[in-house]
Amino acid sequence: MEDIHHHENTKAVINRMSRAIGHMQAIKKMVEEGQDCSAILIQLSAVRSAINSIGRIVLQDHIDHCVVDAVKSGDQKVLDDLNDAIAKFLK
Amino acid sequence: MEDIHHHENTKAVINRMSRAIGHMQAIKKMVEEGQDCSAILIQLSAVRSAINSIGRIVLQDHIDHCVVDAVKSGDQKVLDDLNDAIAKFLK
Repeated sequence: MEDIHHHENTKAVINRMSRAIGHMQAIKKMVEEGQDCSAILIQLSAVRSAINSIGRIVLQDHIDHCVVDAVKSGDQKVLDDLNDAIAKFLK
Repeated sequence: MEDIHHHENTKAVINRMSRAIGHMQAIKKMVEEGQDCSAILIQLSAVRSAINSIGRIVLQDHIDHCVVDAVKSGDQKVLDDLNDAIAKFLK
């Protein structure tokens, strides 16, 4: 099995993504059923928090593994890409 | 057909929810395939923006319809619920 870019928390990230997708499907159903807008907004806010948490885990895994390796080997592109990604994610 | 709580943009919201769900499934696949963390972060950021846009549309529809009706009929609970939802969504 090829395993070139898996991290400590890859399984946890996949599980969280599955839960977030299920959550989005439930919210879509709320909209289809014409449920209360305030309730829908609160659920959208919850799924957004879940995505933020997933982003944090991906970032931490990345820093703990790829970035440490990149610094050791002097690979500037990995650091540049990381800075771009952080700038987009934290805006 | 029962249609007690549908808004002008309900169809658009459902379509955007479907696209966001497809996007999240694609991101999950990126994680499963061990793709680059920076690329995953950028896609998570994009789907979060999509969720923010959906929230804005739901909120605008809600204000244009339910809230206007609630003010006319003096229904304070609708306004209280809206304030709670906004507080959660904009934090």
